[in-house]
Amino acid sequence: MQVKFLLKDSDIPKTWYNIIADMPKPPEAVLHPGTGKPIGPADLAPLFPMPLIEQEVSSQREIPIPDEIREIYALWRPTPMFRARRLEEAIGTKSRIYYKYEGVSPAGSHKPNTSIPQAYYNKMSGRKRIATETGAGQWGSAMAIAGAFFGLEVKVYMVKVSYNQKPYRRMLMEAYGAKVVASPSPDTNSGRGILAQAPDSPGSLGIAISEAVEDAATREDTSYALGSVLNHVCLHQTVVGLEAQEQMKLAGDYPDVVIACCGGGSNLAGIGFPFLRDKIAGKRNPRIVAVEPSSCPTLTKGVYAYDFGDTAQLTPLVKMYTLGHDFVPAGIHAGGLRYHGDSPLVSQLCHEGLLDAQAYNQTVVFQSAVTFARSEGLLPAPESSHAIHAAVVEAKQADQEGKQKTILFNLSGHGFFDLTAYDDFLNGRLQDYEYPKEKIAEALHRLPKVGA
Amino acid sequence: MQVKFLLKDSDIPKTWYNIIADMPKPPEAVLHPGTGKPIGPADLAPLFPMPLIEQEVSSQREIPIPDEIREIYALWRPTPMFRARRLEEAIGTKSRIYYKYEGVSPAGSHKPNTSIPQAYYNKMSGRKRIATETGAGQWGSAMAIAGAFFGLEVKVYMVKVSYNQKPYRRMLMEAYGAKVVASPSPDTNSGRGILAQAPDSPGSLGIAISEAVEDAATREDTSYALGSVLNHVCLHQTVVGLEAQEQMKLAGDYPDVVIACCGGGSNLAGIGFPFLRDKIAGKRNPRIVAVEPSSCPTLTKGVYAYDFGDTAQLTPLVKMYTLGHDFVPAGIHAGGLRYHGDSPLVSQLCHEGLLDAQAYNQTVVFQSAVTFARSEGLLPAPESSHAIHAAVVEAKQADQEGKQKTILFNLSGHGFFDLTAYDDFLNGRLQDYEYPKEKIAEALHRLPKVGA
Repeated sequence: MQVKFLLKDSDIPKTWYNIIADMPKPPEAVLHPGTGKPIGPADLAPLFPMPLIEQEVSSQREIPIPDEIREIYALWRPTPMFRARRLEEAIGTKSRIYYKYEGVSPAGSHKPNTSIPQAYYNKMSGRKRIATETGAGQWGSAMAIAGAFFGLEVKVYMVKVSYNQKPYRRMLMEAYGAKVVASPSPDTNSGRGILAQAPDSPGSLGIAISEAVEDAATREDTSYALGSVLNHVCLHQTVVGLEAQEQMKLAGDYPDVVIACCGGGSNLAGIGFPFLRDKIAGKRNPRIVAVEPSSCPTLTKGVYAYDFGDTAQLTPLVKMYTLGHDFVPAGIHAGGLRYHGDSPLVSQLCHEGLLDAQAYNQTVVFQSAVTFARSEGLLPAPESSHAIHAAVVEAKQADQEGKQKTILFNLSGHGFFDLTAYDDFLNGRLQDYEYPKEKIAEALHRLPKVGA
Repeated sequence: MQVKFLLKDSDIPKTWYNIIADMPKPPEAVLHPGTGKPIGPADLAPLFPMPLIEQEVSSQREIPIPDEIREIYALWRPTPMFRARRLEEAIGTKSRIYYKYEGVSPAGSHKPNTSIPQAYYNKMSGRKRIATETGAGQWGSAMAIAGAFFGLEVKVYMVKVSYNQKPYRRMLMEAYGAKVVASPSPDTNSGRGILAQAPDSPGSLGIAISEAVEDAATREDTSYALGSVLNHVCLHQTVVGLEAQEQMKLAGDYPDVVIACCGGGSNLAGIGFPFLRDKIAGKRNPRIVAVEPSSCPTLTKGVYAYDFGDTAQLTPLVKMYTLGHDFVPAGIHAGGLRYHGDSPLVSQLCHEGLLDAQAYNQTVVFQSAVTFARSEGLLPAPESSHAIHAAVVEAKQADQEGKQKTILFNLSGHGFFDLTAYDDFLNGRLQDYEYPKEKIAEALHRLPKVGA
């Protein structure tokens, strides 16, 4: 009774899949925040090395993965795909549930799939340093590991409240040699400015982004790096779905539904885009489902419009589903899903009806997480648990309809750093948050007027 | 360039390897602490179900692994074996270094290899509850997961100082449904006795063992479970070495040296005994090396004599290397290696010259751990890092001698719950502890006079 479907080192994909080549319409232009005019590669050069900018705008379907990256991917890739037989039994479904498990990476999540190529292209382009921001620390630790592998200095601006409350992730980044500062920090103009006004500022992702961008923009040896949202990040993550397609073949099956949690969108893109390619080509008809928290329901309740990627209005304007760039989501445990916007590619595909979206509150999500842990063994991250819950709902619904479905979801990371969330759940301390309708109207009101 | 050597679900060993069948001399008798006479299976029946007692005393070479256990092993087994090419490069060695990685288990270590069969045989024997103790929580969480899988209630007596200082492991056990109390607890006579005298007692592993044993001995539906030391625990762990032997064949190689850290001994037994079988049979001549901390150098500086397994002198007397049952090791970060004694099987084989032992201080161990993390990616547990360091020393020595060796070590677990240890190391706060010679004479003095 096989439960694991494994590929060999030599099966690591040789190319990333670029969905831009297959999208019904080309991606919407990215606009300069001042002029409202489309920006070009040169505008991005102070922040990113040219190979990454080329990937950002490329419409080439298959982009080769350099051997140096595949050799590092081989430290944990191909990741296993599991048939969740014990979960199926626990919830009493007749559907078949599979999950791809990205928690085997050194950082414990899918994030190194992109931090490794980002570090590689920076190294190849002669950059010596990378500046980035991190909230709870998932992305920062993935970037720290990548920096260690390629001998790049990594500076992480970590939101101060997390820096103080979640020291383990900070220690993990430091174990890999990264320099971590609490943001707002005295190391940048924007940080100093905020500290002068509010010495006790708890920080925010918006502030941390401003600091990292300023750091990169003002030092020639330094690039900025982002862990989600951007096209090249989504591109790198497609190794997940490409492997899963081979593993579904080993299982002699094909998913009716492909499910992933969705914050900035790269995790959904990673497992979903290769299957979406089959759908667009008319070869198969999988439903791709993005799962978000009810407290930050970007795809399910946001508006599709041009908006800033950050709170401080420093980034270019991108067309995406957004709750408004100044929306501050409730403090749910799935920190990686607390983003006001979404990947422009994911947004556009969702807008065109090629992706579905669902939102759930964290209490039911943790109920499914505990059911999963006690049947399959692995302790899931709160973010990934959104996908688990959607898979459970999907399976139960199929049972009610007398159908038997094949369900695949991405278990994007483990929950070893999120145990206080489980503790809160088990002791009845979890709070649910609904996103009130009136906020949508407010958000629309505050959107920039360009490109509409 | 292959770095991972993977086996399939169907390659999970079908039998455990029992080294008792191949030992030059039969194991020394276990003695009753009161009478000094050998004890038999019936004496153990209040604590363990009969199938485990049979395994404890069996001399059958291959003991079948029930399908129900193999199906659960398949959730993470066979574990991967890696060629540590990037570590080799980082330390500039010409030797080949391989490591087996047990951190992919749900508990993050090798411990579930035995907690699963222990839960299974208890379930089969009609027991409803398991009582056990845990220090830092590694073993307790492995037992909690096993209880969840087989529907057994698990009660964990967790040393109070760890219960308060390391809440994450407690939360992990609770996420799997176990009941965890700080020990000394008001739930047992021994706990109440200690609390009456010393309400602020920080607890100790000795006290926690007393509580768990009392719990099991006084309730018919309850067994006691131990995570190391005993013969049946060493037996269950041999899946590690049996898989590694197949994986070395895939690599077209065979180890000159097999290295594992050694606290209670089951980790060393797990990877080492199957290779030792080759050595005893004269087929191959691998050196098997147990690595311990300098602060608790049981095999390297202890005496080989009958002693109690616990501080409170409740357990039977076993012949083993010991530092004296009342020895309290320094508070090093590798909590799993802080045991005054050692597995009787490991001890006897070491005494007979079939196993080597080495001891290292924690500062050099963490230096190697960080080198490993920054080259191979995975963050190792402090215990496992002892094996990493010994492998690095072995490789460097081979280079000095102009030799090229094949080195295999067991990376028994990840270090995600041990980040404060890395923080201490990186900030120069680690302390080294030597075991003074005069303590050996003292320990000899306090040993029980039976069976000498």
